[in-house]
Amino acid sequence: MTEPFVVVGGDAAGLSAASKLRREAPERDVVVFEKGRWVSYAHCGTPYFVKGAVDDLTDLLSLSPEDVEDRGIELRREAEVTAVNTDKRLVTVVDADGTAYEQPYAELLVATGGRATSAPIPGIDLDGVFTMHGLDSAATVRAYLSTPETFTVDSLGGGEFVHEEAVSRYGAMEPPEVMTIVGGGYVGVEMAEAFSAWDLDVHLFQRGDHPLTPFGEAVGERVASHLQDYGVTLHLGEEVEELRGKEGHVSSVVCYDGSELETDGVLVGIGIRPNVELLEGTEVELGDSGAIAVDEYGRTSVDGIYAAGDCAEMPHAVTGDPAWIPLGLTANRAGRAIGKTIAGDPTPVGSVAGTAVVKAFDLECGRTGIIDCDAARDVGFDPVAETITAGSRSGYYPGNEETTVTLVADRDSGRLLGGSIVGEDRAAVRIDTVATALEAALAVEEVEQLDLAYAPPFSPVWDPVLVAAKVLGESLSA
Amino acid sequence: MTEPFVVVGGDAAGLSAASKLRREAPERDVVVFEKGRWVSYAHCGTPYFVKGAVDDLTDLLSLSPEDVEDRGIELRREAEVTAVNTDKRLVTVVDADGTAYEQPYAELLVATGGRATSAPIPGIDLDGVFTMHGLDSAATVRAYLSTPETFTVDSLGGGEFVHEEAVSRYGAMEPPEVMTIVGGGYVGVEMAEAFSAWDLDVHLFQRGDHPLTPFGEAVGERVASHLQDYGVTLHLGEEVEELRGKEGHVSSVVCYDGSELETDGVLVGIGIRPNVELLEGTEVELGDSGAIAVDEYGRTSVDGIYAAGDCAEMPHAVTGDPAWIPLGLTANRAGRAIGKTIAGDPTPVGSVAGTAVVKAFDLECGRTGIIDCDAARDVGFDPVAETITAGSRSGYYPGNEETTVTLVADRDSGRLLGGSIVGEDRAAVRIDTVATALEAALAVEEVEQLDLAYAPPFSPVWDPVLVAAKVLGESLSA
Repeated sequence: MTEPFVVVGGDAAGLSAASKLRREAPERDVVVFEKGRWVSYAHCGTPYFVKGAVDDLTDLLSLSPEDVEDRGIELRREAEVTAVNTDKRLVTVVDADGTAYEQPYAELLVATGGRATSAPIPGIDLDGVFTMHGLDSAATVRAYLSTPETFTVDSLGGGEFVHEEAVSRYGAMEPPEVMTIVGGGYVGVEMAEAFSAWDLDVHLFQRGDHPLTPFGEAVGERVASHLQDYGVTLHLGEEVEELRGKEGHVSSVVCYDGSELETDGVLVGIGIRPNVELLEGTEVELGDSGAIAVDEYGRTSVDGIYAAGDCAEMPHAVTGDPAWIPLGLTANRAGRAIGKTIAGDPTPVGSVAGTAVVKAFDLECGRTGIIDCDAARDVGFDPVAETITAGSRSGYYPGNEETTVTLVADRDSGRLLGGSIVGEDRAAVRIDTVATALEAALAVEEVEQLDLAYAPPFSPVWDPVLVAAKVLGESLSA
Repeated sequence: MTEPFVVVGGDAAGLSAASKLRREAPERDVVVFEKGRWVSYAHCGTPYFVKGAVDDLTDLLSLSPEDVEDRGIELRREAEVTAVNTDKRLVTVVDADGTAYEQPYAELLVATGGRATSAPIPGIDLDGVFTMHGLDSAATVRAYLSTPETFTVDSLGGGEFVHEEAVSRYGAMEPPEVMTIVGGGYVGVEMAEAFSAWDLDVHLFQRGDHPLTPFGEAVGERVASHLQDYGVTLHLGEEVEELRGKEGHVSSVVCYDGSELETDGVLVGIGIRPNVELLEGTEVELGDSGAIAVDEYGRTSVDGIYAAGDCAEMPHAVTGDPAWIPLGLTANRAGRAIGKTIAGDPTPVGSVAGTAVVKAFDLECGRTGIIDCDAARDVGFDPVAETITAGSRSGYYPGNEETTVTLVADRDSGRLLGGSIVGEDRAAVRIDTVATALEAALAVEEVEQLDLAYAPPFSPVWDPVLVAAKVLGESLSA
C-alpha cells in the first residue's frame, strides 16, 4: 500500500497541492494537517475585513473545510505537526486535545507559511498590541475597534472558527481613538486605510524615508504624501524602541530619539519570517534567506520532502537565484505544480518576479523585479533607472491622472530588470505589462516597441510604461 | 543646399516624423503640408466631444499650429499636395486660394491618413447623414445635436479652425430625436454611447451577429447585451441598402430585407480606407491591402519616399507579413522612427499587433493579435481557442466584476497568437499583458507561469489572463 501524500499547512500552497494531486491521481490518499481552525483563507483580505469593506470573516475563505473534504482530501484541523522523521518517513502530530500520534507519508509537503515578526520590540505582549497575520488577528483587531454596546461575536461572521475568548475580551473594551502602526510596508499602509475608515487618529512609524520600501522612492514618496492628505500622521525616519503600558494595556510608543506618543493601540507590521522550526534537526536544508531551499520542482534536499509557499524559496525570475519573496500567486502556483509532479507529471514551480500591488487609499501601487539599484549591482548588473510621470488617459479625457513609472535596466545588455508604478487611475494592473516583459527577458528597446492599447478613456497614445521605456532607452544609448 | 524633408499630412505620423527630425538634425528644413485646417488632432477623441465629455474641439489637439512652428517646422495648412514627381523629387501643392506651385524634397513622407468609407450606400449625401472622421465631422454632428436656440459656433470651442458655414447650418436645424448608426465597429459603438448621452432614441445596424467584429464573439456578445441594457436598439444581421430622404434630409433607413426605419439622422461607420490617390501613376507600390507597401524602415518602393500612419502597411507582430491595421500608437511610432532614420540613425518602424481597446458604456473591451481562427488558419497556424470568465478582483472585495478572456494559440508550437478581454472593472488595460506576451512570442505555458500582480482590490490570485492561459494550456496538452 502506498502511504498518503501528507501536507503540513492548510492554506494556499498546501491545499493547491492536495487538490491537484487528488484531481490528477484520485487513487492517492491525501492528508492535510492544519494547526489552526481556519483553512484556505485570504491573508491579503484581512485589512479589508478590519476596514469593514468585507462583512464576514468567512467571506475570506476560498474553500470551506467541507469543500476541501469534498475533494477527497482528509483534512485535520487543530492538528499540529511537531516533528518530521525523514528516515522513517513519518510526522508526529499533536491533536487539539494534546494526543500525539505518528503519520507515515510517501511524500511530504511543508507548507507552514510565515508569521508576522514582532520579537525585537519590548512591550509587544501588552494588550492592545497586534500583528496582522491570519484571520484570528483580523478578528481580534476588528473586535477592538467595535463599540462594546453593540459588539457580538456573531458580528464577525466567523462562525465556529472564531476564538470566542480572545475576541470577546477585545469586544468588551472601550474602542481606541488613537491607533499607531509600526512599519510602513503593505500591512502598515493597508491598515492605515482600514483604521482611517473607523475615524481614528492614525500614526504610522517607518524607519526609512518613505513607506513601501520595496516599491522604491518614486512610489514611496507619493504614498507618503497621499497618506498625509488622508490625515495619517507619518513618523518617517523614526524607529520604535519600546511600547509602554498601563495596567497591562499599551499606552504609548517610545522612539529611540526619546519621543513618546500616547496611543490606545499598536499594530506591528514589520515583516514576516518563514515558519521553518518544524525542520530543525532534520537534514532539510535552508537557503541563505532562512527559508527552505528547493529545486525547480519544489523538492528539498531530502528525498520525498517538498516545500512551497511562504516558508520556501523560489528561483528569482530575473537572476535565477533562490529568493524568498512570499506572495499569494506564487504559493498557489508552486503548490499546484508539486501536486502535478507527485501525480507523475513533473512540473516546475516557476519563478518569482516579486510582482506586487497595493492600494493606499486612492493610490494604486505596483512593483516587479529588481528596482533597487544597489540590489541590482549586488547581483552583477550595471543598473540604469529612469522615472517619468505621464497621464493615465488622453489629457482631454475626464479622469486622466498622473501616473509615475520607474523602469530599471542593465546598461550592458539593455535588459529590463524591474519597474514600479503609482497613480490613481488603473495604475496597479499596468505593472503586469512590466512583469510580462521582465519574464520574457525583453530589452528596453523591445519594450519601447510594444503595441500597447490606446483609447482616450483608458490610456494615452503612449502608455506611461512606453513613455518610461522611451526615456530609459535614451539614457541607455547616451 | 539640401532640399527639405517634406511631409504630406499634419497628424500623428507626419508630425512625429517632422518633430523627431528637427530635434535630431536641427540643421534640416522640414515642411509639412496639411490640406485641412486642423493639425495634430486626436481622431479617437471625437466621439467624446460629440458626447459632451470633452468640452472644446481644441481640447483634442495635441499640438497647436504655433506649437508645430515652435519646433522649427514649416507648417502649411489648407495646402493640398496633388501630385508627386518621383523623378524630379518634387510635389505639386495647391493653396487655399487655388494657386499651384512645386516644392522640391530630399525625402518625402506620405502620411495622408485614411478616410471613412461610405460610398456603397445610396442616399449618403442627404443632409443629416454623417461619417466620423476628423474634427470637422465631429463639429457638424455636435452642432446638429445642439438646441438651435442656444447653439453658437463658439460653443464648439474650435476657434478659427471651425468651418462656420457647415456647423451653422446644422446648428440651426431642429435636433434629432432618433439617430441611426450604420456599422458596429469602434465608431459605431462609441457613437451609440455618445448619442445616448443626448437622450436620443439610438438604433445600430450591424451586418454580422454581434458588434465589434475584430474583438471576436465573446466580446461582441457581451457588448451587444450591454448596449441593449442601455436602451440602444440593435439590428443585428441586417444590412442597410439605402437611405431615403424628404426635402433633402434623411428620413429613413431601408434594409435589404425590405424593412424601413424612420430616423432623423444617420451616422455611417463602416470602416476606413487608406488615402493613397496621391500616388496613383507613380511607381510607389501598394500592398495587397490597398495601403502603401513599406519596408521595415517605412521606405516605399521608390527611393526617398517614406509612408506611415493610416495610409501605410506595417509588419504584423505575429506573422511578420505586411498588414494594414490603422492605429494611433503605431502611426506615432512609425513617424518617429522615420524621423530618426532620416536624421541618420536607421530605426525600424516596429510592428503592429492590432492591439485595440474600446469603451462601450461601462464595458471595457480589448483585443490583440490574431483571434479569428479562420484568419489564423489562413496564415498557416493550427489555432486552439479558449474563453473563460473570471473575477476582476478577489471575490469578496467590493467591485469584483466578471471578466471574459479569450486566448488563441497555435497547437504545434504552443505560441500565443492573440486574445481578447471584456469586463467592467479595469479590463481594457489587461490586454497589454497579452500584447506583451504576444510580441515576446511567449508560449501559453510561459504565459501561465507569469508572476502577475495580486491584491484583493485589483486582481484575484489568478488574474483572468492566467486563468485563460491555464485552461488553454490544458486544451493544448490534451
